Amino acid sequence: MTDASPAPDDGLTTRLRRLRPALIVNTGDGKGKSTAAFGTALRAWHQGWSIGVFQFVKSPDWRSGEREAFEVLDRLHTETGVGGPVSWQAVGAGRTATRKGSDREAQAQAANTAWAEVQRRLAGQQHDFYVLDEFTYPLVYGWLDLDEVLATLAGRPGTQHVVITGRRAPQPLLDLATTVTAMTKLKHPFDTNQLGQAGIEW
Amino acid sequence: MTDASPAPDDGLTTRLRRLRPALIVNTGDGKGKSTAAFGTALRAWHQGWSIGVFQFVKSPDWRSGEREAFEVLDRLHTETGVGGPVSWQAVGAGRTATRKGSDREAQAQAANTAWAEVQRRLAGQQHDFYVLDEFTYPLVYGWLDLDEVLATLAGRPGTQHVVITGRRAPQPLLDLATTVTAMTKLKHPFDTNQLGQAGIEW
Repeated sequence: MTDASPAPDDGLTTRLRRLRPALIVNTGDGKGKSTAAFGTALRAWHQGWSIGVFQFVKSPDWRSGEREAFEVLDRLHTETGVGGPVSWQAVGAGRTATRKGSDREAQAQAANTAWAEVQRRLAGQQHDFYVLDEFTYPLVYGWLDLDEVLATLAGRPGTQHVVITGRRAPQPLLDLATTVTAMTKLKHPFDTNQLGQAGIEW
Repeated sequence: MTDASPAPDDGLTTRLRRLRPALIVNTGDGKGKSTAAFGTALRAWHQGWSIGVFQFVKSPDWRSGEREAFEVLDRLHTETGVGGPVSWQAVGAGRTATRKGSDREAQAQAANTAWAEVQRRLAGQQHDFYVLDEFTYPLVYGWLDLDEVLATLAGRPGTQHVVITGRRAPQPLLDLATTVTAMTKLKHPFDTNQLGQAGIEW
């Protein structure tokens, strides 16, 4: 819901202002970056939009709750026409592997392959809504070329919304974004020896 | 995913540390407070947990994407047994009404009725996972008694997880929480005359 405020003097109609493609970045060291992205994806799904999710750190073996829930929603769309289709790719090697830097060459290669696929889909306007989850990490590690990523995002055709998550989002990406939220940790369960648990952390 | 770290010396087993009931607060003036709550609820749903959502500002007439998506997921659970059941209550008068303070007596009454129902469900352990969306506002406006709310939350039986969203969360609530994230606005689409749009903001 928006505040009632005078119409801005930018020459755009209300409809056009509503249709500007969003580039949303959820960054910071707190929780909620990815869950907020998937919560927004739920709205997109309900609009009947085609959704493409690329997870750049999670490995294909990682069966998260959100992934399985969206696979259920995708099947529901196929069978009943409710909502939109969901395509989900987990292309990373897992966080531990990423941190340890093991086999970085292969990880960089996987990130580049996945990004090339994102580029292909953006050029073809394959989806209405993309989640590039933990996408800042291949940028921070230098596995992807930041300038090329920015140029692709800035030049994407049509009305394709993109949500990017991850810590340490580079400033030029924030400059390009339409919405930036920093999730800041004020208190974290791991601080008090709480372990991650199914249903909350995955 | 958690870091590998030595087992803490707190006398709890790994299983017990995993089962501590979470009290998660998403606050701050940025976006993502509610979407992160609903993204986490998606994980809870996938676990087969019973989910109770109470929206303290949204009015019953407001058909948000997340609400309709979770109603679909609830029906899917009923029909196929996949996921968990979802009970959704929107008990507010809408943000504009809340801001304008119109009919505050009726709004305060509605908040108290809804809170009494939350108390009843918590006492009966009716759900595994609760979202009290925009619950900070009735606290800030003084419609609910903070001490009573804190006592109810602190004394809730079993393993009932609770997520609370909203700006200006009172410090005693943060003190009680297991996880607190502040969503901070670094850039907001409304700053650049962008209007809210279906699929993104609702």
